Amino acid sequence: MTDSAEPAASAPAPPVVGMVGGGQLARMTSQAATGLGIGFRVLAGDTGDSAAQVVVGTRFGDYRSLAGLRDFAADCDVLTFDHEHVPAPHLQALEQDGIKVRPDAAALRFTQDKLAMRERLTGMGIACPRFAPVHTAADVEAFADGTWPLVLKAVSGGYDGRGVWICESAAEAEAVLANAEHAHGVELMAEEYVAFDRELAVLAARSPHRQGAVYPVVQTVQRDGICREVIAPAPGLAPGRRAEGQELVLRIAKELGVTGLLAVEMFETPAGLLVNELAMRPHNTGHWTIEGARTSQFEQHLRAVLDLPLGDPRMAAPASVMANVLGGHDADVYDRYIHVMAADPAVKVHMYGKQVRPGRKIGHVTAVGEDPEDLADRARRAASYLRWGKEDGE
Amino acid sequence: MTDSAEPAASAPAPPVVGMVGGGQLARMTSQAATGLGIGFRVLAGDTGDSAAQVVVGTRFGDYRSLAGLRDFAADCDVLTFDHEHVPAPHLQALEQDGIKVRPDAAALRFTQDKLAMRERLTGMGIACPRFAPVHTAADVEAFADGTWPLVLKAVSGGYDGRGVWICESAAEAEAVLANAEHAHGVELMAEEYVAFDRELAVLAARSPHRQGAVYPVVQTVQRDGICREVIAPAPGLAPGRRAEGQELVLRIAKELGVTGLLAVEMFETPAGLLVNELAMRPHNTGHWTIEGARTSQFEQHLRAVLDLPLGDPRMAAPASVMANVLGGHDADVYDRYIHVMAADPAVKVHMYGKQVRPGRKIGHVTAVGEDPEDLADRARRAASYLRWGKEDGE
Repeated sequence: MTDSAEPAASAPAPPVVGMVGGGQLARMTSQAATGLGIGFRVLAGDTGDSAAQVVVGTRFGDYRSLAGLRDFAADCDVLTFDHEHVPAPHLQALEQDGIKVRPDAAALRFTQDKLAMRERLTGMGIACPRFAPVHTAADVEAFADGTWPLVLKAVSGGYDGRGVWICESAAEAEAVLANAEHAHGVELMAEEYVAFDRELAVLAARSPHRQGAVYPVVQTVQRDGICREVIAPAPGLAPGRRAEGQELVLRIAKELGVTGLLAVEMFETPAGLLVNELAMRPHNTGHWTIEGARTSQFEQHLRAVLDLPLGDPRMAAPASVMANVLGGHDADVYDRYIHVMAADPAVKVHMYGKQVRPGRKIGHVTAVGEDPEDLADRARRAASYLRWGKEDGE
Repeated sequence: MTDSAEPAASAPAPPVVGMVGGGQLARMTSQAATGLGIGFRVLAGDTGDSAAQVVVGTRFGDYRSLAGLRDFAADCDVLTFDHEHVPAPHLQALEQDGIKVRPDAAALRFTQDKLAMRERLTGMGIACPRFAPVHTAADVEAFADGTWPLVLKAVSGGYDGRGVWICESAAEAEAVLANAEHAHGVELMAEEYVAFDRELAVLAARSPHRQGAVYPVVQTVQRDGICREVIAPAPGLAPGRRAEGQELVLRIAKELGVTGLLAVEMFETPAGLLVNELAMRPHNTGHWTIEGARTSQFEQHLRAVLDLPLGDPRMAAPASVMANVLGGHDADVYDRYIHVMAADPAVKVHMYGKQVRPGRKIGHVTAVGEDPEDLADRARRAASYLRWGKEDGE
């Protein structure tokens, strides 16, 4: 007989990944952890957090507290993150405790300090927007050299949920500078305003064993600084551009010593690719991989931080489009499922359990198939119906 | 600005589905519930149960206790099941309490009483193996009429994990009868032993609004009464056989008033299809749908019991093969991930967190692509490596 009552010799429990942060990235990572049968915990701030609602191993604490982080890490085999806000000295202290912090403090620094990132990348010969640290209106005017608009960015973090300001004039820049540096103590840098053709993003994973795996180059559509949709693969990519984007990201992952996912947002310009932002975690530009790729970014991140062989990053279908669902003015999103699902039985709805606020990312929808234009149309319609509110004038 | 701090008017919380049973079917349903952003609870027997490990809303209790079921149902909007063992009188009592029991007691009866199922289906003109209730050796011999082997089945449940016996002779049948009816009080029925060409299965969903959606006909490979692999779609299906199988299952779902999933296992014979078994829940023969179909059976079951429009059941790729991972003699399955994942980065591993016992279903792997033979080979190899034990002589 095959179903003997005799258990096999007992085995070590599978490893536990602890993710700092209780947002939707941790929530979706938990679904992948369940599939892999590994242990998974999150450090959340509040019981209402997106991941806290669905992760059995949720601990509550403050990621800004070293004691809280140590307490959380004590029950985990690997520590990873759904955001980049853990203070660098804490990360270093955890590493000195012998904890496997993946990605590590040295790599995460380049997501926490945009000036360090720009300096490192340009030092590697990677094209970025022209940049400079600025402290005074004179610094900004010198950088502008008469060309407006330009971009001011917080070197680290930001305030009031903002870290990027597009300034049309010296007067505007001076106001931002006054508010940021003087009122909020936020250090700024200036960057050229890039007149791009479109925005692209590339996601790769890298493991401690130095294996790399890279997803197809995607096109992202942003509005008001918020990612609205992602088209995979980026339509009409020039010959060579795909390999260029993918190699660029694998090279950055290697040079910065990334473990786990690395997302790179880029501008495509007539002169070539310019790197805009980096993130070292599952990323909004990779949500399409849940249905659209053989291995989702969430499973890939877990495999990478656990030093397992990486999953196949190839597409599961010719094309995939993801549209973010932003909160509208009617909070009863569930009430609209019936319309969205009846209108399009194949669109995949992912909701994050977050309280609805106008403009907040509360979910996403993905359409997978053949024709990117048709898929984009379907994903947009579903997302907009779930939002059910005015797009403008909020 | 788009990220206003003002929450939208508060909305009713999304509905809560309560699933009775804490096995892997509930575990995988929870992953789909997280995606849909609905509430999900399970009633489990033990903290070590597969679903109890990963479902925040786990309650512990005995599904054989009406009080326990009532207590569990009080916090749920819809009650559903990951097995068919809840006593029928309890189901009826819950319905009389006004609880939405989906599928309902009247439908579930046909999964709990195989004699009633056979009588109902044959009454509908649906081909089944020849059958008869049996109580004595004389009944069995009269049914056999000199033709052996034949099959004895427990009308409800079984004992020692078994409910089906293939008997080669009157003496064997008499021994089974003595043990089952007399020692264990289990009522038996006899069925002809069907010399089938192969086994097929079809999965459909039906909602209270009477919408139906049916998945492709699949081929299943059983060994020692355990499902070992599922090939979707069933290769080389004769013209008309696909529609016949699908229509059959939609018709059964309608006639029996099923809400949620209905899985029908069939024998394909030279004379046509014969219905073997029914289940009204997510089913092992539908695990391939997680990656292989546009809508997984787990999401589909939730949509059906919530009376949402059903998802697209079509395949996400030309072919998909699932192989069950059975426990072997070495319990450290995680230790073998590295080999399986390095050998085949595209095969999807699903582990259930269950204690490893020889022959027990502890997980499954799925390969999705073009060529069913290649996929079957890959899925088998991965499953067999995860098992890492002798196939025979256990």
